[in-house]
Amino acid sequence: MPSAPPSAKTLTATEIASMLGGALCGASDAKFGQVQDIKTAQANEVAFFKSTPNEMGQHPSEEDFVAMRDSAAGLLLVDVNCPSPPQCHIQVDNPSLAATIMAQFWQSRRAHCKPGIHPTAVIEDGAQVADSAYIGPNCVVGKNSTVGADCILHANVVLYDNVHLGDACVIQSNTTLGADGFGYTWDGTQHLHMPQIGGVRIGRGVEIGANCCIDTGTFEATEIGDGCIFDNQVQIGHNSKIGRFVIMCGQVGISGSASIGDGALFAGKSGAAGHLHVGAGAKIAARAAVMGDVEAGQTVAGQPAVDIKLHQRMMAMMRRNARR
Amino acid sequence: MPSAPPSAKTLTATEIASMLGGALCGASDAKFGQVQDIKTAQANEVAFFKSTPNEMGQHPSEEDFVAMRDSAAGLLLVDVNCPSPPQCHIQVDNPSLAATIMAQFWQSRRAHCKPGIHPTAVIEDGAQVADSAYIGPNCVVGKNSTVGADCILHANVVLYDNVHLGDACVIQSNTTLGADGFGYTWDGTQHLHMPQIGGVRIGRGVEIGANCCIDTGTFEATEIGDGCIFDNQVQIGHNSKIGRFVIMCGQVGISGSASIGDGALFAGKSGAAGHLHVGAGAKIAARAAVMGDVEAGQTVAGQPAVDIKLHQRMMAMMRRNARR
Amino acid sequence: MPSAPPSAKTLTATEIASMLGGALCGASDAKFGQVQDIKTAQANEVAFFKSTPNEMGQHPSEEDFVAMRDSAAGLLLVDVNCPSPPQCHIQVDNPSLAATIMAQFWQSRRAHCKPGIHPTAVIEDGAQVADSAYIGPNCVVGKNSTVGADCILHANVVLYDNVHLGDACVIQSNTTLGADGFGYTWDGTQHLHMPQIGGVRIGRGVEIGANCCIDTGTFEATEIGDGCIFDNQVQIGHNSKIGRFVIMCGQVGISGSASIGDGALFAGKSGAAGHLHVGAGAKIAARAAVMGDVEAGQTVAGQPAVDIKLHQRMMAMMRRNARR
Repeated sequence: MPSAPPSAKTLTATEIASMLGGALCGASDAKFGQVQDIKTAQANEVAFFKSTPNEMGQHPSEEDFVAMRDSAAGLLLVDVNCPSPPQCHIQVDNPSLAATIMAQFWQSRRAHCKPGIHPTAVIEDGAQVADSAYIGPNCVVGKNSTVGADCILHANVVLYDNVHLGDACVIQSNTTLGADGFGYTWDGTQHLHMPQIGGVRIGRGVEIGANCCIDTGTFEATEIGDGCIFDNQVQIGHNSKIGRFVIMCGQVGISGSASIGDGALFAGKSGAAGHLHVGAGAKIAARAAVMGDVEAGQTVAGQPAVDIKLHQRMMAMMRRNARR
Repeated sequence: MPSAPPSAKTLTATEIASMLGGALCGASDAKFGQVQDIKTAQANEVAFFKSTPNEMGQHPSEEDFVAMRDSAAGLLLVDVNCPSPPQCHIQVDNPSLAATIMAQFWQSRRAHCKPGIHPTAVIEDGAQVADSAYIGPNCVVGKNSTVGADCILHANVVLYDNVHLGDACVIQSNTTLGADGFGYTWDGTQHLHMPQIGGVRIGRGVEIGANCCIDTGTFEATEIGDGCIFDNQVQIGHNSKIGRFVIMCGQVGISGSASIGDGALFAGKSGAAGHLHVGAGAKIAARAAVMGDVEAGQTVAGQPAVDIKLHQRMMAMMRRNARR
Repeated sequence: MPSAPPSAKTLTATEIASMLGGALCGASDAKFGQVQDIKTAQANEVAFFKSTPNEMGQHPSEEDFVAMRDSAAGLLLVDVNCPSPPQCHIQVDNPSLAATIMAQFWQSRRAHCKPGIHPTAVIEDGAQVADSAYIGPNCVVGKNSTVGADCILHANVVLYDNVHLGDACVIQSNTTLGADGFGYTWDGTQHLHMPQIGGVRIGRGVEIGANCCIDTGTFEATEIGDGCIFDNQVQIGHNSKIGRFVIMCGQVGISGSASIGDGALFAGKSGAAGHLHVGAGAKIAARAAVMGDVEAGQTVAGQPAVDIKLHQRMMAMMRRNARR
């Protein structure tokens, strides 16, 4: 089984309970240095279990409870409503969050990506890279672009000219930021390209997956707000304004000049046409094709996307009629 | 606001009117060097406004007209039917085209991407790169491949062996041209790969977005005709023959051995199965899945794609019945 | 017409018949060194023709038969049921397979990608690359990653840390293996990333297209079984377990923690949600969105995906009702 080397900063169960502000039940002599899955964790590892429904409303199964009680983990992080397991455990409000905090403590990405610019990276004239940033092999940072403090650019990331990354952003490999926006005018014999000079402006703590594309704006910057997280192969068209803490799952596509409110969620392979507004906190189901404005907080599905309740009635009608 | 440095080649309103062959109304002492959006343009910048419906048939709103009349731009490019604005302006047939021509004059991509091969690029034996081409950092040009005059290959573009680019092509970063076509035969125990030796042949003035893939043909070249424009993350299967001036929006996928006529348009996330023909000038709606031949000039939508009129009736029927 | 240089290892028709174990009918003085398409093959080239239905059940057309009989190829590979063509020919069980075997003999990819590491590639500390592997320009092989014997990594491929490739894998350009899985927990003010330390484990003889992404697992490896073939722009979420000989066509997306059985087929732009199981040999139609378990051998289509028979009835019902 592949596994990262355990961190040197091992902690006792008491120290972990103190870090998490949780109640320690039972005792363990072990020193812990890694979070693991409940099924594979060993005596010197920490696992976590949530007895309450997950974000999709699904309760853990009886099998999940058995796996938890049978876990060889030396320490469990559980929620306060969880029936007490036989192992040494810590009760916390949110076991997933507690596990993430411990895993970040032991396996911080920033500890593995030390500040510095790989010798094969190309930093063009006028680009500014913070001393604490990590720029991986074969990355390119174009003219007048800026990379903020503590940023991580994994191998082969390309920033064109005039792309600005706030602090603490993480960009996965083979992602392209600031390519020419898709703006053309037919002149009677060919498509003429409108020069795209607006650049890209990305906020603080934004995480962008591998092989994504965010195009430069025509006149003003394409904008990505603080704390957004994008999975792989996401495409953002030029001039779009994406709010803060927006989630985009794999293969999402947003056309040009769209405006997306804070906290909106786009599930896998969904997308939006250009020149429209998706309200804050809206949820776009997997595959949904947003062709018009979506209200704040609304959930939509289908192609074209409609309110999820109407979509569900449409699907039910189709199945019903098809079975006749 | 990020902005490109103004060009040295500033022009007077009279000079611009002369270049565009338009009628100058009013006067301005300013020297202009940049096109800008109508809402953000300044006194030394040019903006443009179209009072007639756009390509989707949408008229500008009353708000748009107000923005135009209130614009701080020192010079407006407007169509001949537009109510005369208070600012100095030039009447032209097509304001978008006029603006594109001026923006290209002031911010030509070729002026920013000077001829030459970046020292980190790899040009393999037998590859031929025109002296006037720009080959960016970490690009690879494979054996026996050719790059025509005035081409621009942005950073990290890969051309495999036997890929031929006509003159004046622009390829955005992390795009892969000429990867092995997806051709396999099951031998009873495994998939055997059929060697793909046909290469890729790309016409003149083709523009390809970031993170696109165009596979090499099996025996004969995969072909992309003159003047095609592809947005990001477009995938073209091996042996396909794409005509001239075809438009493909983001995340379009074309399977192997498809044949696409001149001037066809594929909207975002649409695609076509292999071994079929899409006629010249056909329009494929966003998300449409073309599973059979499409006639020249036809518009199709849906999955599987059908004539847009039938698709609209199907959608209307679904909504109607779902509401019962 | 672009074409690879003919191999030095030319063979007579008799030698080819012997290699393939087929019956030679007629005679030819030519020495053959290349397989070609039936329409363009010349007197010193081999073409192939299958008179029986293809995998989609389509019979060759009368035109196809004419093209075969009119072919200028010096040697044809045909199935035993094919009416004897006038040219020198060899009867074999499977003409496609026979042609693939000959093409591999003459144009082996491994002959063109000689063992060795390109000087621009970056091999990080602790990475192990087999002597017989080819690592192309600008590739990155991360810490503690391994590349097996006879592997081919085309230009600009990135392997993060802890990515393991079995023997004889081929990875096309700009593909990213082992990027951080998309795992986050909301802490009340931001999304916290769960460190992903499981790595990626890829079997023997796996072929992965260009611009693909396979994410690293959270605790245990994301796994791809022996002999899988993936087309371009495929995305595999973290913790997924893909069986052996699975086929994924272009732009397929699999969410995290999915489990896919041996020999399953995902057609273009299809995908699966996370935490579900697709049985062995299941067929997922183009565009299908798998939202729940699929039985072994089942064929599904639609969004959400349902059994293909129900899907076809739903489509028929829609067309019928829309036409009223």
